[in-house]
Amino acid sequence: MTLKMDADALNAFLESDFPQVAGQYLVETVDETTLTARLKVEQTHLRPGGTVSGPAMFALADLAIYCAILSRIGPVALAVTTNASIDFMRKPAAGRDLIAQCRVLKLGRVLAVAEALIFSDGGAEPVARCSMTYSIPPK
Amino acid sequence: MTLKMDADALNAFLESDFPQVAGQYLVETVDETTLTARLKVEQTHLRPGGTVSGPAMFALADLAIYCAILSRIGPVALAVTTNASIDFMRKPAAGRDLIAQCRVLKLGRVLAVAEALIFSDGGAEPVARCSMTYSIPPK
Amino acid sequence: MTLKMDADALNAFLESDFPQVAGQYLVETVDETTLTARLKVEQTHLRPGGTVSGPAMFALADLAIYCAILSRIGPVALAVTTNASIDFMRKPAAGRDLIAQCRVLKLGRVLAVAEALIFSDGGAEPVARCSMTYSIPPK
Amino acid sequence: MTLKMDADALNAFLESDFPQVAGQYLVETVDETTLTARLKVEQTHLRPGGTVSGPAMFALADLAIYCAILSRIGPVALAVTTNASIDFMRKPAAGRDLIAQCRVLKLGRVLAVAEALIFSDGGAEPVARCSMTYSIPPK
Repeated sequence: MTLKMDADALNAFLESDFPQVAGQYLVETVDETTLTARLKVEQTHLRPGGTVSGPAMFALADLAIYCAILSRIGPVALAVTTNASIDFMRKPAAGRDLIAQCRVLKLGRVLAVAEALIFSDGGAEPVARCSMTYSIPPK
Repeated sequence: MTLKMDADALNAFLESDFPQVAGQYLVETVDETTLTARLKVEQTHLRPGGTVSGPAMFALADLAIYCAILSRIGPVALAVTTNASIDFMRKPAAGRDLIAQCRVLKLGRVLAVAEALIFSDGGAEPVARCSMTYSIPPK
Repeated sequence: MTLKMDADALNAFLESDFPQVAGQYLVETVDETTLTARLKVEQTHLRPGGTVSGPAMFALADLAIYCAILSRIGPVALAVTTNASIDFMRKPAAGRDLIAQCRVLKLGRVLAVAEALIFSDGGAEPVARCSMTYSIPPK
Repeated sequence: MTLKMDADALNAFLESDFPQVAGQYLVETVDETTLTARLKVEQTHLRPGGTVSGPAMFALADLAIYCAILSRIGPVALAVTTNASIDFMRKPAAGRDLIAQCRVLKLGRVLAVAEALIFSDGGAEPVARCSMTYSIPPK
């Protein structure tokens, strides 16, 4: 499998097509098996007590998985999330960025399935896991 | 069952404890069976094309379900979401607020389960459905 | 909306196309909004202690939701489950059949989404909730 | 981490405590990171066309994840599944056993989260993925 978009191309795509949120995320690495993306945690992502909110983790997983799919099908697609399941397992470390590691499990004609583990930057144990299904529009 | 918090109490709680997001949401009604909450859709919730983003819908469901649980156990609890499953079914109508209708299915000693349907304001068919589990801390 | 299959037609379809399991299930009612199906609980569905197993509840939800979709699109379809999320909330009552009440939330061109609540026969509170996505094959 | 039950102990436990289903499953390997279990596919697990049914895959994931948790906490626990999310991604190969590979992501005081990938025996790509939450009873 040849990737159609590398990390630079994905970051450029986020900046051009998702300017409202692009600054918050960085695709760090992408290869045939894994995409890694970072959420640059800011005040707006925090809950009282200083931990990252559930919706901010969901948004990171959604963006990372979207990028992992685009890395394989290219920027033309209007893929949309149709289903997501997320488990929040541990409290993220305060004052740390979050890192999502994701993996595409199926890339079909109409549906793609991928999963992500989310870590506090530098942490060994995942704070959340997420699986998502994307609907891929007909060409 | 007597509710421990009504809509006014829940809105006041959001303002005091979640000042970063409180202005975006309004608990409209709450009774023994259903809580209704509104997301006042703003530019920050939109995706290119003008529809509300998936993470914004997730955040609405999370907040509405959290409030539905608090309406029954009161504001003292540090309930946290442990699991969420969401289906995005239709494109939200552009320029419309979103309305979440949620229902508590189980309120146990350590776990609560609730579900929400999300509608574009005035729409007849749900744009998303979500179920969530909350962990309730020991007293 | 006109239903394409009523309860009798669905039960006949189960007997002809799913002979291995058909005797365990009965579609009791179906109308525009809700399908009700029964699992005739037998020894094979039980866990030690006498309660119905999780997989038996999953199988009931899967069958009931499948029938609810077929009631609308007819028996020709090779619809397949692509995703399921299930919450087990209470222990089913011993020695009681299970009843699934399900509702189709979306019937699209390629995906259908439906949900089910499962009760012990005669019980007021759901023992499980389930949502499923089906992929509908092109005609 | 020291395992409290190895593959032999888990298989013996299944035979003594789940005699109705034990013959269908075999725990093949278990170590600190991964448990592998086999479903010996029989007629009763098949759908028309000869592929393994969704509920049979669900049951395999449930059993494998249950064993993975018991391998760490021992046979005393009455752990129960509280939530499951499963994606059916590919049609299992006809006439092949199914293999579940599972991994415990969190083993907390009251909740455990684990995930499983399911393969047709000898297949390279997963036919299903599943994540489950178990509630662990207080000692």
